[in-house]
Amino acid sequence: MKTVKDFLWKPGMTVEQMVDDFGSLGYQSIELNKASDIVMKMKQEGAKIYLTFTSNMVTSGLRGFFAQLIKLGMADVVVTTSASIEEDIIKSLGDEFEVSDFNANDIAMHEKGENRVGNLLIRNESYMKFEDKIQEFLKRIYEKKKRWDVSDFLHELGLMVDDSNSILYQAAVKNVPIFCPGIADSSIGFHLFMFQQKNPDFVIDVISDVKNVIFASNYDEKKGLISLGGSISKHYAIFSGLMNGGFDYVVYLTTSHASSGSMSGATTKEAMSWGKIKDSASGATVNGDVTITFPLVMGRALDKLKKMEILK
Amino acid sequence: MKTVKDFLWKPGMTVEQMVDDFGSLGYQSIELNKASDIVMKMKQEGAKIYLTFTSNMVTSGLRGFFAQLIKLGMADVVVTTSASIEEDIIKSLGDEFEVSDFNANDIAMHEKGENRVGNLLIRNESYMKFEDKIQEFLKRIYEKKKRWDVSDFLHELGLMVDDSNSILYQAAVKNVPIFCPGIADSSIGFHLFMFQQKNPDFVIDVISDVKNVIFASNYDEKKGLISLGGSISKHYAIFSGLMNGGFDYVVYLTTSHASSGSMSGATTKEAMSWGKIKDSASGATVNGDVTITFPLVMGRALDKLKKMEILK
Amino acid sequence: MKTVKDFLWKPGMTVEQMVDDFGSLGYQSIELNKASDIVMKMKQEGAKIYLTFTSNMVTSGLRGFFAQLIKLGMADVVVTTSASIEEDIIKSLGDEFEVSDFNANDIAMHEKGENRVGNLLIRNESYMKFEDKIQEFLKRIYEKKKRWDVSDFLHELGLMVDDSNSILYQAAVKNVPIFCPGIADSSIGFHLFMFQQKNPDFVIDVISDVKNVIFASNYDEKKGLISLGGSISKHYAIFSGLMNGGFDYVVYLTTSHASSGSMSGATTKEAMSWGKIKDSASGATVNGDVTITFPLVMGRALDKLKKMEILK
Amino acid sequence: MKTVKDFLWKPGMTVEQMVDDFGSLGYQSIELNKASDIVMKMKQEGAKIYLTFTSNMVTSGLRGFFAQLIKLGMADVVVTTSASIEEDIIKSLGDEFEVSDFNANDIAMHEKGENRVGNLLIRNESYMKFEDKIQEFLKRIYEKKKRWDVSDFLHELGLMVDDSNSILYQAAVKNVPIFCPGIADSSIGFHLFMFQQKNPDFVIDVISDVKNVIFASNYDEKKGLISLGGSISKHYAIFSGLMNGGFDYVVYLTTSHASSGSMSGATTKEAMSWGKIKDSASGATVNGDVTITFPLVMGRALDKLKKMEILK
Repeated sequence: MKTVKDFLWKPGMTVEQMVDDFGSLGYQSIELNKASDIVMKMKQEGAKIYLTFTSNMVTSGLRGFFAQLIKLGMADVVVTTSASIEEDIIKSLGDEFEVSDFNANDIAMHEKGENRVGNLLIRNESYMKFEDKIQEFLKRIYEKKKRWDVSDFLHELGLMVDDSNSILYQAAVKNVPIFCPGIADSSIGFHLFMFQQKNPDFVIDVISDVKNVIFASNYDEKKGLISLGGSISKHYAIFSGLMNGGFDYVVYLTTSHASSGSMSGATTKEAMSWGKIKDSASGATVNGDVTITFPLVMGRALDKLKKMEILK
Repeated sequence: MKTVKDFLWKPGMTVEQMVDDFGSLGYQSIELNKASDIVMKMKQEGAKIYLTFTSNMVTSGLRGFFAQLIKLGMADVVVTTSASIEEDIIKSLGDEFEVSDFNANDIAMHEKGENRVGNLLIRNESYMKFEDKIQEFLKRIYEKKKRWDVSDFLHELGLMVDDSNSILYQAAVKNVPIFCPGIADSSIGFHLFMFQQKNPDFVIDVISDVKNVIFASNYDEKKGLISLGGSISKHYAIFSGLMNGGFDYVVYLTTSHASSGSMSGATTKEAMSWGKIKDSASGATVNGDVTITFPLVMGRALDKLKKMEILK
Repeated sequence: MKTVKDFLWKPGMTVEQMVDDFGSLGYQSIELNKASDIVMKMKQEGAKIYLTFTSNMVTSGLRGFFAQLIKLGMADVVVTTSASIEEDIIKSLGDEFEVSDFNANDIAMHEKGENRVGNLLIRNESYMKFEDKIQEFLKRIYEKKKRWDVSDFLHELGLMVDDSNSILYQAAVKNVPIFCPGIADSSIGFHLFMFQQKNPDFVIDVISDVKNVIFASNYDEKKGLISLGGSISKHYAIFSGLMNGGFDYVVYLTTSHASSGSMSGATTKEAMSWGKIKDSASGATVNGDVTITFPLVMGRALDKLKKMEILK
Repeated sequence: MKTVKDFLWKPGMTVEQMVDDFGSLGYQSIELNKASDIVMKMKQEGAKIYLTFTSNMVTSGLRGFFAQLIKLGMADVVVTTSASIEEDIIKSLGDEFEVSDFNANDIAMHEKGENRVGNLLIRNESYMKFEDKIQEFLKRIYEKKKRWDVSDFLHELGLMVDDSNSILYQAAVKNVPIFCPGIADSSIGFHLFMFQQKNPDFVIDVISDVKNVIFASNYDEKKGLISLGGSISKHYAIFSGLMNGGFDYVVYLTTSHASSGSMSGATTKEAMSWGKIKDSASGATVNGDVTITFPLVMGRALDKLKKMEILK
């Protein structure tokens, strides 16, 4: 029997202390505390950790945090959507996204070449810089080989990016595969298409990459999943886990709800019926904006793992 | 100046009458009425209509409605996610999905081979039937050609399905392209992979398909977008529209909100900053479960278009 | 075993037909169909029906529908919030609310004396008219008696309003009590206060009204609850039901979710733990905007009850 | 021009540092940072701070934090709902609420006398203890005076409670008025009614209390509002502010969205059209569970105010 405890602020409170207190606070704060516990368990028990996120989280400053987590060994397999790739590269070219407003004047923004993503914005110039760079990268990659599995292609891209805050870069350095089944979408998809027009034997093989995602871990290995938001990145990870015996630990952070039957709102409870999560799996679903909940869940886990000397 | 009118029930009220009344009722009912108006305008002005949906909507009985809309000429381009393909085929094989419960016992369901999707369920047997059928289909498709653009592949699949309620079938008959950039995901992706293992020169080309989605309409044609839910299906459609001058009319039906910067919650207002929607575009975003809002939006539009003799 | 059925549009479809089809469609449409069934059962089995709603629904055109439902004998007890009272009177004075825009320029609106409620607006003039009228009404009421239970006071007010679309009027005519424990809030609360300043022995007794809400039905009577949105109106109704043996049938329509532990998001499932709903109760929670879901739920129920000759 | 910055975890990170970083992170984390800035400004500029919350937040451990904030001089006026009163007293009697599960078996819980609130629970015994205590308190209060304004009554109650984590207690000690226009609801409402049955001249006057809430601050004073969740507590505060010139600073933390026109989802932007917030007001709306967002918003503000020696 766990009781609710009156939360009290203490001066200079750390994230670790506050998320500890969340464990007896109520509603989503309890779930957040539980999610943090499960992340710790993944690492303590040597599970292979799958991390999935959508591109809007890369647009936000979580991009650097994702790179850092890969570097720290907290993500062994990454699954994401196509725009994450182009935005990671744009940022590695030194371009910056800006803070805007949910109620901005969108017509005026369009005239100024500003593209809004919630309360952030990306400038047209950033996409132009990306265009130049990616065509150069593609040339070099094509010279090596004509047909690429998506994850091999992204590994190669990562070797060309030189930015310690880059997801592609850290993943390449740490040999962490990045899966992106929807690579044909967005600006990166368009530039791959333009390049293929000139080089028709250039193939990005999404089907062949299925073996890589399935064999990203063994059937017998412990597996953990941290899934942010929904979309194809969440589904591809849990489907590949299902092919591979299911996950032992699962953490979902999302703003969606289960009521519409969507993937983004699907809970860890529902996943049990599919065997996507082993019946004995530890699962937690935290409802809330990932730019708030994810730094809290991971911040506490990292501090505790560091003290245990599990985090290198 | 439009005023709010007291809504009154009349015996035997039709959907058309009720959604007419929604125009002066309040909050999302007003937006729903506006969305229905915009759908009508798309058709009246001869716009090419893009329809996007996620697979959970195919799991629900909207699958038959999507097929009917294609048949009626209300969808000229379709974009969807991978599981939609397998579920459309499963249903065409005579298998049925069942009504379950949001609070079902997921562990018990798993033991019975039942997979929950919200308050619906799909049986393991259905996936086994699909496995047998798709391998047979793939063999026949491979005999014709080794390398396929996704939309050509799906057209070919549609020709093999014999079910008037099938999305693939009606799209093939009406020459409506189905785009599915995330084809490598889900059961269909896995079976494509298994087939490719035996036939390594079999290629499903997602990159080459980009030309098909971009040239699915001309720059000068009027274009309309009806997007249900979010995910890669929504983004691929609006990105292709952007490459092609942007949409003139846009209707979004979704349960997500703009606050998290996600694609599923992105509004028609935000799309203007990207030029994804022309500045002069008519746009409406309706918040609510698509299994309720979509039949209402379309039901009224179809009845009115029929009376105008625009719907054949 | 209930199966999902492919939804198909039929020309001239009625609301009744569409909501019938929702029963095998998926996600919230299934719940909506179930809610409609439960409403019918309430009436068929002679239950006393409690209807609760918040004032934003009165701002919308649902106000006329609430009045109509009372007239039709579909609501035996009403619970609402304070602003519902003033807005019902404002409308009965011939004033109209207008359709605005969620993205309206709020500063400009303020300068024009326009007050926004979502995508609707109420003009300052309407509140001024209300002020004049309510002071006149209060004088007449005070002449009768100095101390009033809230529901008696609202009954008296209803006798003074002459508008068949008025909730207060129909409730007075049909002897349906209206409970409003939060009467001290909003414009009505302010004007009661102003009147009391001049007449210090004038008392609106919220505590004494508790007996009226508790004895609004017998312990042995069947009781049904239709609750729209959340707030004090939902809680007061279910609390009074709890004091009285709990409800037999419960329908919640709301946009909130259970994840935050709020009253508006609390489900019929949670209510069972409180005994607010009898364990055997039929319950349904429909997630979505009430201006869409409520006309559908009730429209079908009314048509079916009429055919059964249960509705007079 | 403010740019997005890559978020990086630092070992032993404090809440203050993390929320500082949120200012350039994205989506709701930016809004949360802004909300924290506005709270600081309220205090720095000597504004009178109104704090509103709903009872589910008292059920959670935020109860102790609310008491602490009053003690620290961070809340000058409190507005809440009726169940907050009884739960604050229950906790002051030494009873504890427990951590449960959103998916708990509600029928089994009911049989065990456990009442679920989201993922928390309250035992029947707690309500019984409350019943005994409150009747004793009411007797003593009635001996002093027969007719009470709500806020005076709650002040008197606070003087009888002896628990430094109690909201009522700290408010009484610090002479902070607690407003509760919906006092007739819930268990407290029921026990007031029972007491009045025996003592018919006992009056709790909600109307007369309007003067107290309106004169809780001067027209000329700076005023700030921190509103958690929605309901009558939010509306009563902003309505009283409106009568008094409007608020200069407003922070809304809520899980609701503006799309349904509800009070809980109403934004600080909408409030401007009403003059509820002065046009020049600083406003921030943070979407997310209050048990997570509120400790973050306030934790950082408190640490910074302490360093500035503004917090005593």
